Amino acid sequence: MRFLFALISSSVSFGLNSSSRLTLRHLHALSSKSQRSTLTTFFNWQPPMATAEESLRRALAEKQSAVEAQGNAVRALKAAKASKPEIDAAIEALNSLKLEKSSIEKQLQAAVSGNDGDASLSREAFRQAAANTLERRLFYIPSFKIYRGVAGLYDYGPPGCAVKSNVLAFWRQHFVLEENMLEVDCPCVTPEVVLKASGHVDKFTDLMVKDEKTGTCYRADHLLKDFCNEKLQKDLSISAEKAAELKHVLATLDDLSAEELGAKIKEYGITAPDTKNPLSDPFPFNLMFQTSIGPSGLSPGYMRPETAQGIFVNFKDLYYYNGNKLPFAAAQIGQAFRNEISPRQGLLRVREFTLAEIEHFVDPEDKSHPKYSEVVNLEFLMFTREEQMSGQSAKRTRLGDAVSKGIVNNETLGYFIGRVYLFLTCLGIDKDRLRFRQHLANEMAHYAADCWDAEIECSYGWIECVGIADRSAYDLRAHSEKSGVPLVAAEKFLEPREVEKLVIAPVKKELGLAFKGNQKKVVEALEAMNEKEALEMKAALESKGEVEFYVCTLGKNVPIKKNMVSISKEIKKEHQRVFTPSVIEPSFGIGRIIYCLFEHSFYTRPSKAGDEQLNVFRFPPLVAPIKCTVFPLVQNQQYEDVAKVISKSLTAAGISHKIDITGTSIGKRYARTDELGVPFAITVDSTKDVTIRERDSKLQVRVDVEEAASVVKSVTDGQRTWEDVWANYAHHTSGSADD
Amino acid sequence: MRFLFALISSSVSFGLNSSSRLTLRHLHALSSKSQRSTLTTFFNWQPPMATAEESLRRALAEKQSAVEAQGNAVRALKAAKASKPEIDAAIEALNSLKLEKSSIEKQLQAAVSGNDGDASLSREAFRQAAANTLERRLFYIPSFKIYRGVAGLYDYGPPGCAVKSNVLAFWRQHFVLEENMLEVDCPCVTPEVVLKASGHVDKFTDLMVKDEKTGTCYRADHLLKDFCNEKLQKDLSISAEKAAELKHVLATLDDLSAEELGAKIKEYGITAPDTKNPLSDPFPFNLMFQTSIGPSGLSPGYMRPETAQGIFVNFKDLYYYNGNKLPFAAAQIGQAFRNEISPRQGLLRVREFTLAEIEHFVDPEDKSHPKYSEVVNLEFLMFTREEQMSGQSAKRTRLGDAVSKGIVNNETLGYFIGRVYLFLTCLGIDKDRLRFRQHLANEMAHYAADCWDAEIECSYGWIECVGIADRSAYDLRAHSEKSGVPLVAAEKFLEPREVEKLVIAPVKKELGLAFKGNQKKVVEALEAMNEKEALEMKAALESKGEVEFYVCTLGKNVPIKKNMVSISKEIKKEHQRVFTPSVIEPSFGIGRIIYCLFEHSFYTRPSKAGDEQLNVFRFPPLVAPIKCTVFPLVQNQQYEDVAKVISKSLTAAGISHKIDITGTSIGKRYARTDELGVPFAITVDSTKDVTIRERDSKLQVRVDVEEAASVVKSVTDGQRTWEDVWANYAHHTSGSADD
Repeated sequence: MRFLFALISSSVSFGLNSSSRLTLRHLHALSSKSQRSTLTTFFNWQPPMATAEESLRRALAEKQSAVEAQGNAVRALKAAKASKPEIDAAIEALNSLKLEKSSIEKQLQAAVSGNDGDASLSREAFRQAAANTLERRLFYIPSFKIYRGVAGLYDYGPPGCAVKSNVLAFWRQHFVLEENMLEVDCPCVTPEVVLKASGHVDKFTDLMVKDEKTGTCYRADHLLKDFCNEKLQKDLSISAEKAAELKHVLATLDDLSAEELGAKIKEYGITAPDTKNPLSDPFPFNLMFQTSIGPSGLSPGYMRPETAQGIFVNFKDLYYYNGNKLPFAAAQIGQAFRNEISPRQGLLRVREFTLAEIEHFVDPEDKSHPKYSEVVNLEFLMFTREEQMSGQSAKRTRLGDAVSKGIVNNETLGYFIGRVYLFLTCLGIDKDRLRFRQHLANEMAHYAADCWDAEIECSYGWIECVGIADRSAYDLRAHSEKSGVPLVAAEKFLEPREVEKLVIAPVKKELGLAFKGNQKKVVEALEAMNEKEALEMKAALESKGEVEFYVCTLGKNVPIKKNMVSISKEIKKEHQRVFTPSVIEPSFGIGRIIYCLFEHSFYTRPSKAGDEQLNVFRFPPLVAPIKCTVFPLVQNQQYEDVAKVISKSLTAAGISHKIDITGTSIGKRYARTDELGVPFAITVDSTKDVTIRERDSKLQVRVDVEEAASVVKSVTDGQRTWEDVWANYAHHTSGSADD
Repeated sequence: MRFLFALISSSVSFGLNSSSRLTLRHLHALSSKSQRSTLTTFFNWQPPMATAEESLRRALAEKQSAVEAQGNAVRALKAAKASKPEIDAAIEALNSLKLEKSSIEKQLQAAVSGNDGDASLSREAFRQAAANTLERRLFYIPSFKIYRGVAGLYDYGPPGCAVKSNVLAFWRQHFVLEENMLEVDCPCVTPEVVLKASGHVDKFTDLMVKDEKTGTCYRADHLLKDFCNEKLQKDLSISAEKAAELKHVLATLDDLSAEELGAKIKEYGITAPDTKNPLSDPFPFNLMFQTSIGPSGLSPGYMRPETAQGIFVNFKDLYYYNGNKLPFAAAQIGQAFRNEISPRQGLLRVREFTLAEIEHFVDPEDKSHPKYSEVVNLEFLMFTREEQMSGQSAKRTRLGDAVSKGIVNNETLGYFIGRVYLFLTCLGIDKDRLRFRQHLANEMAHYAADCWDAEIECSYGWIECVGIADRSAYDLRAHSEKSGVPLVAAEKFLEPREVEKLVIAPVKKELGLAFKGNQKKVVEALEAMNEKEALEMKAALESKGEVEFYVCTLGKNVPIKKNMVSISKEIKKEHQRVFTPSVIEPSFGIGRIIYCLFEHSFYTRPSKAGDEQLNVFRFPPLVAPIKCTVFPLVQNQQYEDVAKVISKSLTAAGISHKIDITGTSIGKRYARTDELGVPFAITVDSTKDVTIRERDSKLQVRVDVEEAASVVKSVTDGQRTWEDVWANYAHHTSGSADD
């Protein structure tokens, strides 16, 4: 259990899903009371504390009492004018108790800051080193820097922009082209009706509190979280029970209602961090950027919080474009916007970001995938619901086993998990720091069949970078209802079929009399019964005349009598089966993937002289912002001319590159280019042949001038490996041209 | 002169520049009164009317008088009980006059609807045919269609999205990679301060009127324009003088102030088109989508109306990244937003669009370009300011001549004009319907050195698709001032130089006494004098003691006395020259280019049976949404297997393609693929060799199965032409496989 909490709190929720309590993926789960109660029950179970920490807290409390008692004893002896030796002995005992207490405090301090006290320090140092290099070389820039910036907005500078464009090009190649997906491109400005249907207008909120004097806003859960963490880590005097309570709050943080959050904030006396002023009660703040379409001010609009809705509203046209056949997938790359209350964590939680989303539409009765066999033997870290609940860790699992055991709900979901794994590892994500984590029951929307997140470990913890969800028919149904346009597919039968159909006919008059204002909710719940439930009710009504029926939108049971609903089976002739397709949605937070890629690619190595640490990004050629640099070894017209000839061939071959003809030492120039993650450098030290250096091994081969561009092209295009090149060309060993 | 008006009114202003009256490019021109007056003078000159139309209007008016006079004569004869033959003769004369009048009316009708009455009809029909195909095949889709859409918002469906992504990839190749530009990627959400500095917050407006009863909003200039056009085309009874006045209004429409527009609307009695209700006075409406950043509601922000500002605010970092060297160019592709009052013209005026912008920073004292020689011999249609003013038409001009004659302001501007020409024609824009039109003096901002628009002719007229402007130091200076961060470059001297510097020192006390509240404007104008002006003033003050000085921000001359300013030259030692770079800005409206490309690529041809017209897009392979289709000739497992093998090779070669294994006739399948502009089709009619068909010629060659993918790749990559292929492979002549 302890493990579970640690995992949940270290797992940073996805920018796609602004905060886990409030995501689209969850909002329907949260609005369903039955889900809520399952969840509360689950978390109400008192978690056992970490044994070491708990016993230390108890020992500390006991020792504290002993110190106090002994102090009293000393004072009593003094008051009673006891003999000096008697008093001295008592004081010695007191000092000894204090020493013991202090020793326990030290142990507890170590326990609560975790065994990773050092690890956390070095994580911080690593992040800082990477961030310094990234900012200095303009991989990214805080937006509008000369105006002191805006929290949560970042620019990509030239190398960052090139990396992003390479990642997106590969995404298009790997998903859109390979799978023949239908790519669309919809506007960011979205009218209210669309986001009303999707649920965002009403539920895409975070809970906020305001400094009652200055009006400064804070995320309520952040304040409570900071308070609990601070208390747990710095206040050694709290009891084991209090510590357990704070941990429980942290674990259930995402599930607290506005009232519960407000109560906790009051109970703990939390005030505004900057001013210590009192705080308002928590209230919901919609995370969408609102605007107005057209000049009248009467058409509210929002900047889309995800790209998916643009695809759903086009389902009918896209299905037609696909020849009215399922399955097919549509895809979209584009900007999405979330007006975060107080963005933290740099590039991981931003107010505007690029999403790449796929909506794969499939017959709910057939979720097989024709290319499933291509991924079935992949093995990687999977972290199932069960493993999370039982405190185990993620396990290396064969994808095919997870699907055949029913852990992954269906083949298509499994196929996309496999494809996402291939996509991320091809980009250069370390496969040992990538896991697929299944959503817990309480994390998932009630309509979702299954959901897995690709999480990547970086200095901030495990980061959700891709969500892969089977969202069933929810989205298409929501837009069908709101727009009145049926978003359905049809399977035409070769011959008409006789179908036995279940007919549920609620008797509205009787229900109205019985339930008044709740009639509509009861009707909907009755109509939503599946066949099994309906037949059970029919049987029960026939035998007992009345049955208790749970209405999830009311959150309680109601008594249904025989005259309130008619349930029967009828036989009909049908020529086709009309149904709402299920959608399987892999959704990629491109900026998060890129940030993790930066961290996984970054390392330092000592300079040749050993006097400084040099920074390197080990980007694979696929994502490297520039594939190659061209250096004349010394400033010299002949060498510069050769460099220009090579540059021209590289341009013709479509290889992005850079010439550096500054007089800087070749070692410095290599270091500069390593910092940008350029995989190859061509150094011109003769007019006949040149050297090609590989970034990570620093090995060099000699190649004819005419051949240089094509060798670099072949190895950046992936037609050959550097090992091939190394095996087939003369090795260059002169130290003069290396660092 | 007539030509000029026709051109101006037929030229659709750029989405980049929402409407020409209100663009950033213009707002500074418009705010400068001196500019305004030049312009008014220019347009106050009474334009001569088109001779034929004018004399017809006069003839019609005369004939109308003659008809009335003769009518009176007839009535007089009748009243006087004249003889029947006398009356009959008078009636005959009246009828003959009426006939003559009607004949003149017909001629006038033809003259005002233009000789292109038919042409305009066929233009309309052509546009409709193209639009039908584009919408049916999902090149584009009105956004949120199931919710009845939103004016000015469109989606790209799968083929449109592929075309767009090809156009952007080629733009990156042609500009960013070939020129080593620094590409950046900045957010759309922009804080107010940035757009305050750029001038958008105060001046990026259109004039709007409201229906006083319903509140419906209209663009004031649109209503006036519609009124004038309607009157000119449909009301034959208006006098030649009235017609001339309406044409004058049309020509000066973009330059009317709110008051002038309001006065005209009142004068002409224009009411709300839908309700005929009275209209409010015109008032400015800011075209930016406004929003609020963060939860406090205290940080206003806007969706950027252009991408350029993101580059300007990063100038300092980018200059450093470029090794503190000029010239260099930065580029950005991204979404931009304009909340149009009432968008018309489909894809040409939209509320959200993709811009691709380049900001080339250059030393204002050296605007040469190292690669200028590569474009110097290009010849294309250029439409100089002088040609426009003197009523000539655009002329085929050698770019080098235009630059050397000083018509194009400088080499760098010329270089980009040439590169834009190459870019557009490579995409498939018809070079005979592409012209580069120089801005007239009144169209340009006062700070701009020169500005040319690449205009493409389509069914809507000549459309501004790319603006190429030398914006001097305006933008960097504006952000330097607002942010307090100097955005400057420095040229380091090899040795310190003694520089004679002009020092202009206004004596504020004296100026304050003389000009009171205008003092600041006079000081600024004095300080802004260039060396020549300052020395002339110095000489004049010394000889005459007082001089008239034009202050453009006041729009008038003021008297400057000797004691009000000291002008002197001092010698200083300088180690470097610090200056604000000029910026040359090519700015591409990607959506407009794509729409024109659709029109230029679209044609119809009769089906084989001759019973219908088939639609074709003649996209070059570079932009075609899909490069190739693969068809088994008949439904047959063997052929399908071959098709799959070929498909796999095409995927491996990175060629986007589609298999069509439906049982539809091969002719229909060709027609379907021609409608998507797919350049090549591989038809499998054997297991050994297959045919490859070229879309426009419909010619087919026979190629081995193994070779098919590589032949298609070579010809879509541009390594060989279709003519090469045709010359080197067996020709396929069987009619069975063709339409």
